[in-house]
Amino acid sequence: MSRSVAGPEIERLIQLLAKLPGLGPRSARRAALHLINKKDELLVPLAKAMDLAGEKIVICSTCGNVDTSDPCLICTDPRRDGTTIVVVEEVADLWALERATAINARYHVLGGVLSPLDGIGPDDIGIAGLVRRVAEGGISEVIIAVNATVEGQTTAHYITDQIGGGEVRISRLAHGVPVGGELDYLDEGTLAAAIRSRTPF
Amino acid sequence: MSRSVAGPEIERLIQLLAKLPGLGPRSARRAALHLINKKDELLVPLAKAMDLAGEKIVICSTCGNVDTSDPCLICTDPRRDGTTIVVVEEVADLWALERATAINARYHVLGGVLSPLDGIGPDDIGIAGLVRRVAEGGISEVIIAVNATVEGQTTAHYITDQIGGGEVRISRLAHGVPVGGELDYLDEGTLAAAIRSRTPF
Repeated sequence: MSRSVAGPEIERLIQLLAKLPGLGPRSARRAALHLINKKDELLVPLAKAMDLAGEKIVICSTCGNVDTSDPCLICTDPRRDGTTIVVVEEVADLWALERATAINARYHVLGGVLSPLDGIGPDDIGIAGLVRRVAEGGISEVIIAVNATVEGQTTAHYITDQIGGGEVRISRLAHGVPVGGELDYLDEGTLAAAIRSRTPF
Repeated sequence: MSRSVAGPEIERLIQLLAKLPGLGPRSARRAALHLINKKDELLVPLAKAMDLAGEKIVICSTCGNVDTSDPCLICTDPRRDGTTIVVVEEVADLWALERATAINARYHVLGGVLSPLDGIGPDDIGIAGLVRRVAEGGISEVIIAVNATVEGQTTAHYITDQIGGGEVRISRLAHGVPVGGELDYLDEGTLAAAIRSRTPF
């Protein structure tokens, strides 16, 4: 702000809110005012929730998920298929698959993808941990669920090189037409893949 | 979420973040993950800033601004023109005018506009406080800077009825072409107003 209109406490709140993804300087101001106007319903509970999260949240040392216990709820859930590991780039991807209740297995969060241009090599993401989990045995399938980007696919190939050759089946997500998607809006690569992988009707 | 993927602390954080304006359920999850990933740089400082804001922020009993002191910094600033009051709907409007360094005067935040359909009458917004401030004397001009909506203009007329007739000059914001605006995209009302209020070149 070109001129300070309020005490430094409000300015600081706006500055920090603006660092959240999806909030720019303008929406951060709006969010700050909303918080101030709803002090008891929102500001105070959110501050408490964040305090608690800051205290309690840890990274699962097995799979890289975020949770309040280590190992995380997913790694310790006996109702999950412990023989299958779904490899994802980020915790957000894990959450997306869980929301879809796509599979009832365990996960492995890489925390990134290989990207030589950005200086991100195999040691910078959780590949060693995945190799270790597979080597420990008991795993029958690894599903590589990384994004369909160049870096994602490079990472998928690297992982296949590292853990392939043994008993473990390695698979990746199917390519095809998104459910509800219109063909007219899809790129040629997706359409070609959808034709190639067509299924009997 | 259809299935709980993490402890209740994270779920609660996401739920509360989703109540901020501009954040939906999806961006709230993204914001929560961002906070968790940047615990020391963002989560902890933001929780502290919110705690502090919750403790310290008050509504100015003179003008309705939010600040950490009552009367607020603007009401007590001796370098401001105390004879002019700018009437705005919300604190956000006050901030917008201050960012523009549009005027160096005092403000009066109504906290809403007259809206009979929503059951909002003169007693529900800060009109009585404005009438009192004007009646106490020392005010030479009241600039009504409410939004150019039907409710805003109704409110402006009501205020004019309440405080008009005395020595105090009452004015409102000029209508016209926004700076940087393209005529082609403007509505007829704005263009007509811009022609009517044309200024010598």
